[in-house]
Amino acid sequence: MTAARDIRTACRRGEFTGQTSGLAAGFAQANLVILPRDWADDFLLFCQRNPKPCPLLAVTDVGGPTPDTVAADADLRTDLPRYRVWKNGELIAEPADITDRWQDDFVSFLIGCSFTFESALERAGIPARHIELGVNVPMFRTNILCQPAGRFHGPLVVSMRPLTPVDAVRAVQITARYPDVHGAPVHLGLPEQLGIADLSQPDFGDAVPIRDDELPVFWACGVTPQAVATAVKPPLMITHSPGCMFVTDLRDESLAVG
Amino acid sequence: MTAARDIRTACRRGEFTGQTSGLAAGFAQANLVILPRDWADDFLLFCQRNPKPCPLLAVTDVGGPTPDTVAADADLRTDLPRYRVWKNGELIAEPADITDRWQDDFVSFLIGCSFTFESALERAGIPARHIELGVNVPMFRTNILCQPAGRFHGPLVVSMRPLTPVDAVRAVQITARYPDVHGAPVHLGLPEQLGIADLSQPDFGDAVPIRDDELPVFWACGVTPQAVATAVKPPLMITHSPGCMFVTDLRDESLAVG
Repeated sequence: MTAARDIRTACRRGEFTGQTSGLAAGFAQANLVILPRDWADDFLLFCQRNPKPCPLLAVTDVGGPTPDTVAADADLRTDLPRYRVWKNGELIAEPADITDRWQDDFVSFLIGCSFTFESALERAGIPARHIELGVNVPMFRTNILCQPAGRFHGPLVVSMRPLTPVDAVRAVQITARYPDVHGAPVHLGLPEQLGIADLSQPDFGDAVPIRDDELPVFWACGVTPQAVATAVKPPLMITHSPGCMFVTDLRDESLAVG
Repeated sequence: MTAARDIRTACRRGEFTGQTSGLAAGFAQANLVILPRDWADDFLLFCQRNPKPCPLLAVTDVGGPTPDTVAADADLRTDLPRYRVWKNGELIAEPADITDRWQDDFVSFLIGCSFTFESALERAGIPARHIELGVNVPMFRTNILCQPAGRFHGPLVVSMRPLTPVDAVRAVQITARYPDVHGAPVHLGLPEQLGIADLSQPDFGDAVPIRDDELPVFWACGVTPQAVATAVKPPLMITHSPGCMFVTDLRDESLAVG
């Protein structure tokens, strides 16, 4: 048994329904988006065209609940702590198991999660403010539009981490090694260029203080595909519940390039 | 004959005494510092302790005028366009040949030059403002002290290039690949943290305009060892004349890591 499989098994048995941040250290976690086949083709194209917010770790075969390439014994219907079910863009349920809602035409998308690069930053002595404070990372809608694909379109969402200039340079180098989990920052230092008027008013997550000797550093965020998909209001969509990620068998370091 | 050897030969024959920027494209150029052996040991240690401003491409044997590992047929007494001779920290001559001043106890240091990373930036579509304007890069003394070594000590000198946030992130990634030519920036965005009060008043080189949508990005500068050595006032030191570099046989790309 690996730590990753332990978490998935505990979820499957209904014994764990909490947040996965910090669990199964060293294993990559993933955002989940499930769509019926009719919508999945457009979403696949959307991810292909927007790899910074939507880096695909795996896409299942139609109807198949197992992401063979990243966790060959997993079942996406049971192995996440908690799910969100969206009908026409509206949240209608937050179950711990979606077996009874499964459809033969479902396609599951596993999208890289910033936990991987955050632990790389922490190993380099660059802690994240929101982790120190025990809150969610602040996230902002930007004035940058994602490349549209079929019915999917919408603004890029970014996460923000305040860093000193020296740490910001190191963070660019470190996170650039992980393109499958959002990679290098998309912006830094001048939030007004992104259409962000007030860093203390995030659109998602929690505000964190920025010191005078720090710059705001912005990464493309895995909330983007959910925000876009929710706005586009597909008849049915299932995602992970915030912070309750799918734990893969991929080692964080297997995602590093260079 | 390579383009690099052509330049060196023209210098040796006294046919070329100008600046080398843009010449022998693809070949790495180097800063030169020559010191008597008595001072060279301290300076070698200084470079070892301060690799960002003083990345050593080669150090010759005592008395030997040829840097075998970077240009096996070169003669450092003749193969630069122009030299500067310093006595007790004061500039006393600027000859095109130092054969008649050569001493058996001279040790030559070849230090990486930012031309290599500037051409990598240009290939990535990130031009340098000072090159566009045809002036020297602006350089500033900072409040960061180099690690002292023996008699050598002094402040870090940085060069500044204004870049948009998106280009700044790319520039960190690109220049990080070239640690032997100063590598990634040492700072960005908050010049006051470096003790730089006015970006329009560089200590060396020329001022360049910074647009509202740009951040100042700072790299450790090869002027640091010259500035330090000049301040320490060794009895005798010979350097290249500004912009009149030694052209090596090293390909720029052979200096790239990762």
